[in-house]
Amino acid sequence: MPERGTMAYTIGIDFGTESARAVLMDTESGEQVTTAVSRYRHGVLERSLPDGTSLPQDWALQHPQDWVDSLEELLQQMTRAAQPDRILGIGIDFTSCTLLPTTSEGRPLCLLEEFHARPHAWPMLWKHHAAQKYADRINASGWDLLAYYGGKTSSEWLWAKAWQILEEAPDIFHAADRLIEGGDWIVWQLTGQEVRSICQAGYKAHWQKGRGYPEAAFLAQLHPNLPQVLAKLSPPHPLGSRAGGLVSAWANRTGLREGTTVATAVIDAHASVPAVGVTEPGVLVAILGTSACHLLLSEKYLAIPGISGVVEDGILPGFYGYEAGQVSFGDIFEWYVRTHAASMYGGEEAAFQKLTREAARLKPGESGLLALDWWNGCRTPYVDASLSGMIIGLTLTTEPPHIYRALLEAAAFGTRRVIETFEAGGLSVEEIRVCGGVAERNKLLLQIMADVTGRDVVDANVLHASATGAAIYAAAAAEIYGSVHEAAKRMGSRKETVYRPIQEHVPVYDALYAEYRRLAEYFGGGTSDVMRKLRQLRVLS
Amino acid sequence: MPERGTMAYTIGIDFGTESARAVLMDTESGEQVTTAVSRYRHGVLERSLPDGTSLPQDWALQHPQDWVDSLEELLQQMTRAAQPDRILGIGIDFTSCTLLPTTSEGRPLCLLEEFHARPHAWPMLWKHHAAQKYADRINASGWDLLAYYGGKTSSEWLWAKAWQILEEAPDIFHAADRLIEGGDWIVWQLTGQEVRSICQAGYKAHWQKGRGYPEAAFLAQLHPNLPQVLAKLSPPHPLGSRAGGLVSAWANRTGLREGTTVATAVIDAHASVPAVGVTEPGVLVAILGTSACHLLLSEKYLAIPGISGVVEDGILPGFYGYEAGQVSFGDIFEWYVRTHAASMYGGEEAAFQKLTREAARLKPGESGLLALDWWNGCRTPYVDASLSGMIIGLTLTTEPPHIYRALLEAAAFGTRRVIETFEAGGLSVEEIRVCGGVAERNKLLLQIMADVTGRDVVDANVLHASATGAAIYAAAAAEIYGSVHEAAKRMGSRKETVYRPIQEHVPVYDALYAEYRRLAEYFGGGTSDVMRKLRQLRVLS
Repeated sequence: MPERGTMAYTIGIDFGTESARAVLMDTESGEQVTTAVSRYRHGVLERSLPDGTSLPQDWALQHPQDWVDSLEELLQQMTRAAQPDRILGIGIDFTSCTLLPTTSEGRPLCLLEEFHARPHAWPMLWKHHAAQKYADRINASGWDLLAYYGGKTSSEWLWAKAWQILEEAPDIFHAADRLIEGGDWIVWQLTGQEVRSICQAGYKAHWQKGRGYPEAAFLAQLHPNLPQVLAKLSPPHPLGSRAGGLVSAWANRTGLREGTTVATAVIDAHASVPAVGVTEPGVLVAILGTSACHLLLSEKYLAIPGISGVVEDGILPGFYGYEAGQVSFGDIFEWYVRTHAASMYGGEEAAFQKLTREAARLKPGESGLLALDWWNGCRTPYVDASLSGMIIGLTLTTEPPHIYRALLEAAAFGTRRVIETFEAGGLSVEEIRVCGGVAERNKLLLQIMADVTGRDVVDANVLHASATGAAIYAAAAAEIYGSVHEAAKRMGSRKETVYRPIQEHVPVYDALYAEYRRLAEYFGGGTSDVMRKLRQLRVLS
Repeated sequence: MPERGTMAYTIGIDFGTESARAVLMDTESGEQVTTAVSRYRHGVLERSLPDGTSLPQDWALQHPQDWVDSLEELLQQMTRAAQPDRILGIGIDFTSCTLLPTTSEGRPLCLLEEFHARPHAWPMLWKHHAAQKYADRINASGWDLLAYYGGKTSSEWLWAKAWQILEEAPDIFHAADRLIEGGDWIVWQLTGQEVRSICQAGYKAHWQKGRGYPEAAFLAQLHPNLPQVLAKLSPPHPLGSRAGGLVSAWANRTGLREGTTVATAVIDAHASVPAVGVTEPGVLVAILGTSACHLLLSEKYLAIPGISGVVEDGILPGFYGYEAGQVSFGDIFEWYVRTHAASMYGGEEAAFQKLTREAARLKPGESGLLALDWWNGCRTPYVDASLSGMIIGLTLTTEPPHIYRALLEAAAFGTRRVIETFEAGGLSVEEIRVCGGVAERNKLLLQIMADVTGRDVVDANVLHASATGAAIYAAAAAEIYGSVHEAAKRMGSRKETVYRPIQEHVPVYDALYAEYRRLAEYFGGGTSDVMRKLRQLRVLS
C-alpha cells in the first residue's frame, strides 16, 4: 500500500465494440484523473474484410491492429496526465467472447499474408452470430455442464466459434496454435506472456474450477477434432492478479515504466461490479445499455435454470459470480424513438425529452398497455433469440407517451423476471445497483425499476464503469491494495442516488407484472410458438 | 312501372351521426342525379344538453330539430333538381338504435318545456353507451332468444336503452307514450303515421317474425315495469313498402307533391345491400368505414354463435338477413396515421399515401408482425368491448410500413373470421362485395382482403350507398318496380372492380391467419383475460 500522500495511479482500458476508452485513476481518492476515447479505424467488419473480401450474413469481425493502435494512443494520453513512475498498474477489460486464432508467438493469423483474405482467420467479435448452427449442435447434445450456463451455450461463445473455424476452415484451425480472447491477447502483447483470464474462460469457454475446460471425450462426440481446441487454450489466472510486467517495447512506445504491473484481463460487463462498489452477495449489479447485463455474487454454487453462467472467482475472488441478461433493453426505447418519435418531435433528443416528460405524468396502469421486452430475443430466462416484442392493450385512445412508458415498464418487468429467476434458484436480491449509458440518461426508468421490483435502485453514478473496474483490478494486481475487495471499497462508487419504490405504485405493478409473467410464459415458455413462426415466415417471404 | 322514357325519380335520405345526406336517383338509369349533405347544427351531444345541463360519461344524444332541419333543407335541394311531380318516392335510412321518447302524437319529450333539461328525454344515439349495465343484466338472464343475436344484447340496442330510461327517469318513462327509432320518427313526421320498420325492430328490439317483440312475462322478470315498453312500440312493417303519403305540411315546405310515397325506414348499413346490387345469398356485403358491418342473405333460419343478428325479411323481403361486424376497422389505420404517421410524414393524407406505397411493396409475412384488430373491442365472434388491440413480432428492424401493413392485414383477418363464423354456422360466402369510405379510399386493403380470404373482393364503386339504398326501397314502395329485388337490379351497382386473390399470397396468409386465429382464441375466447384486466387497471389508475 502506498504511503499516505504518495500518489499512486492505475490505468483501466476498456475495449468496446466500436472504440476503446481509458481512465487514469487516483487509487487513493478514487477519482478519475483523466479519460479518453479512441475509435477503431475499421469499426466492426460486417460486410467485408479490409481487402474487400465480402462476408456472409451474421458475421462480425474486428481488426487486431485497431486494438493495438488504440491501446498505444490511450496509454500515451494517460501517461501524459501523471508522473509515469506513479502509474503502478494497467488493467484491461474487453468484450467477450471475442476470439482470434494466432501463432504460438501470438501473431494473429489474419495479419499473415496467406490468411489475410480468409474471414475465419480474423477476430470474431462477441456479436458474430454465424456460428449458431454449432451452438445448436452443442445444445442438442444433452451436455450436463450446460446446467451451469442456463441450459444452453451461445453462438457468441468460444466453443461454437472454435467449431465454426474447425469445420469451415480446417487449415486455419490447424495453423492456429492458440485460440485466444481479445482481452487475453492484449495482456500478451503488453507482457509478452500468454495469461488467460478466469473470467473469460469461465463464462465463455465453459471452464469450471475443479473441472477445467470441457472434457476431451465429450468434445470428441461432437466432432473428432474438436478436442484439439484444448491444446490451443491454457489454464486461467485469477482476477486482480499480476499477469506480468510491461515489456520494454511498450514502455518505449508509451512512456510508462518497463515492468509496470499488467493485470489479468476481465470481461467488460464484469469489470463494472467493483466499479459500482459491490463486493458482497445480495446486490444485483445491472449494467444498462442497449442490452442489460446482470451480475450477482454469492457464496453458493448453484445450477439455476435461465441464468447464463456461474463461475467461481469469475468476478470477485472468493465468490461465485452469476451472470444473467436482457438482450433487449435500451434498444427498445431507442427503437421507438428512432423509428417513430424522432420525426414526430423534431429529432431523437427532443423526442426522448418530450416522451420522458409525458410518460412521467402517467400513473402505473394508466397506459392500459403491457409489452414483452423481447425486441431482440430473450436471454434470461428463455435463452431464445427467436422471441420477439409485443404490445397488448392498444385502443383508439393510445398515444405515443403511453407506448413509450409501456416500453420502459417492459424493460423493468424483464429485470424483475431476472431477479425472480435468481430467487427461484436460491439467491436473494436485496437491492439493484445500476450503471451504464441508459442508467446515466434515463432516470424515469430507474424509478419505474424501483416501483416494479419493489427494491431500491441505486444509481452508482459511475461514468466509464468498465474502465474504472479494470483500473481497480489493476490496483489489486499492483498490490496498491491487498485485494480487489479493498480496492473496490476505496476506488468504487461513492456518490450514489437511491430510487426507492413509491409505495402506491407497487401493488399496481404487482398486478401488471403478474400479467407480464403469464404472457411471457405463454409466448416464451413453449405453449405458443407464434413468435418463431413469424420469424420463419419473414425469412421465407 | 313507368313508361319507357318517362322519367321517374326517388329520393334517399341517409341520417348519419354528424350529418344527413340525400341522393336523387333516376330510377331507370340508376344514376345519382344530384346529392347533398346537411350537417346537424348540434352534432352529437356528448358533454351537455343545448341548455348547458352536463351529461355523464358514455352518453351520446342527438337533437330531433337537427334532423327536421336537415330533412327540409335536403328535400328542397333534391326537389330543385327534378320535376317535383316526377319524384315518386322518398326513402329514409337512419343510424340505429337511435331511440327517442315521444307523446302519442309523436312530439319528442325533450322538446317539451318540462323535460327539456332532462337527459333521458333526448334521443339516445346508437353510440350512447351509458346503458351498459342494463345490457349486462339482460345478458345475465339466460334469455334463449339471444341465440339469434350472437348470444348478447348490446348496450346500443333498444331494451338496454328503454330500461335505462325506466330505471333512471321513471317520470319520463311514464310520460313517453311511444319509444321510437329516429328513422321511424322521420317517417311519422312525413306521413303523419307511426309506421315502424321491420329492420330496426328486428335487429335492435329483438322482434322476430312469428314471435313478435319479447314476451311480457320474460320482461317482467327483469323489471316489473319493463313490460310497459311493449305498449310504447307497434308492430313492424315490411321494407320496400309504402308507409304513407307525404302530408301537406311537408309538401308545402319542400315543393314535393302531397301524397308522395314515403317508404318504411331502414337501418343505414342495411340499406347498402340493394345499393351494391346484392339480392341473393352467398355474397357478403361489407360496409367498410371506421367500423365494418357485414350483411348476408340466406333462405335458412339459423342461430349462429357470434353473429349479431338474424331477422326474417330484415334486409330484403323473402330472405333471412344476417348481420355481423368488426367494431374496429378503418379506425385502426386512422389511429396509426393520426397518432404516429401524420407528424412523421407531413400530414395525414401524405402519411396515408406514403405508408400505402411502402406497405404495398412488402410481401405477405415480410413484416414479421401479426396484429389483433380489436382496438375498439370485438363484435364478431366474441361480442366483447373489453378486448383490445395487440401487435406481436416486433423487432429492432420493424419500421412504420411494417406496422401499417400488419394493421391492414389484421382488419382482413377479422373479416376472414367473420366469414368463418358464418360458414361454421352453415352459411356459405362465395364473394365479398364492399362499399363505404374505406373501400373507396384504400385499394391496397381490398387486395389484402382478397388474398387473406381467398375470395374475390368486388368493389361496388357505389358512393353514398346507404342513401342510394334508401332510394331503391322507395322505388319499390312507390311501385316503380315490382319488388326491392327488381329495383336493386336496376338501380344498384353496375361498374365494379374485382380484386382477385393473388395465388402465391394465399398460402402465406393461410399460415398467418392460423396464428391470428390461435391468438384470437387465446385472448378473446376466454383463456386469457389480460385485456380485460388492463382495462380495469386503466380505469382504476
